[in-house]
Amino acid sequence: MTSAEQPAVPSPAPRKRPGRRPGSTDTRRTVLEAARAEFAARGYEKASMRAIGRTAGVDAALLHHYFGSKDRLFLAALEFPVDPRTVVEQVLAGDRATVGERVAGFVLTLWEQPGVLDRLLALIRAAATTEQVAELMRGFVLEELVRRAAAELDIDQPELRTELMLSQIIGLAMARYVIGVEPLASATREELVPLLAPTFQGYLGGA
Amino acid sequence: MTSAEQPAVPSPAPRKRPGRRPGSTDTRRTVLEAARAEFAARGYEKASMRAIGRTAGVDAALLHHYFGSKDRLFLAALEFPVDPRTVVEQVLAGDRATVGERVAGFVLTLWEQPGVLDRLLALIRAAATTEQVAELMRGFVLEELVRRAAAELDIDQPELRTELMLSQIIGLAMARYVIGVEPLASATREELVPLLAPTFQGYLGGA
Repeated sequence: MTSAEQPAVPSPAPRKRPGRRPGSTDTRRTVLEAARAEFAARGYEKASMRAIGRTAGVDAALLHHYFGSKDRLFLAALEFPVDPRTVVEQVLAGDRATVGERVAGFVLTLWEQPGVLDRLLALIRAAATTEQVAELMRGFVLEELVRRAAAELDIDQPELRTELMLSQIIGLAMARYVIGVEPLASATREELVPLLAPTFQGYLGGA
Repeated sequence: MTSAEQPAVPSPAPRKRPGRRPGSTDTRRTVLEAARAEFAARGYEKASMRAIGRTAGVDAALLHHYFGSKDRLFLAALEFPVDPRTVVEQVLAGDRATVGERVAGFVLTLWEQPGVLDRLLALIRAAATTEQVAELMRGFVLEELVRRAAAELDIDQPELRTELMLSQIIGLAMARYVIGVEPLASATREELVPLLAPTFQGYLGGA
């Protein structure tokens, strides 16, 4: 609460390490990468602003000044790698007959991109343990994905079906990456897409 | 490690509360109920043996003596409410044409039974945040469910397909109960079974 208003600490004496200024784009990226790694590794509650600052080479007080509280840094760090508007338009709203295959391919390709999986796992871990984050995620999912998709999909119960699709995506991430059960954990995208596509097609393809 | 060998603390002076003896069946059930509630509410790492003992009215030292360390109490508390052997024989290994509907009906009915959901959510929360629990869960899923099901199911890639089925079950629990996104969270069993059955049928029904 108060940490967001905490002023940057002036440095009257020369510091041992010069540190980086969080204002620059490079430093912002470095901080967000450090935050993603920390949240993914330790979960939302145990993640430490101090550790993030240390990894990024940024003074903890400056971190607080520029990114505010831990939950604001968390949201900034987990900023969706793709615009939900684009996902809905390009993935869900294309040819209805192949929507399941597009969703399966999109999700598995997305997770292979650097940094994406860390963000997703941090979010799932945090939502699983912290009601405040579950609430944030609930709001995000509803506002950004479910309502948008429901407006686009001409099917019965569009919200419920979109949420069933999301539940399979979340469970796949849990089973494949968090629990890491084999052979699912090591299965390739090429093996998984044909198995998952009919599931997504069933939820989104309409009767 | 050492807590499992910790001897019961003798009570030379009369205690304020008589406490219960963990040896009796009733007390064992009370302790396991208290443990399930605590693990479900706070997650594996933050759950406290002391709080569990307090809720159950059992001395913390006796708790350690009878149930050993926290991870052993955790496993005892989360003991599967049904025998995995029965699940595989009755749910998976029946008529192949209706296996999807049986799985969907079984899972949603199981979660409505008292105490079951608490166990599942505690397990998911703990696995999401603690590698040690993820490892325990990985072992359990493989030994008790996947190998057993694979031996019973006459389909291609039985392990992978069983794990995809489990991933949908885990994701459904996350989306419906942990994130609690509507309308999925309030949807009835009767609404969900027809939507989920084709997914499970696709994974387990064979080509």
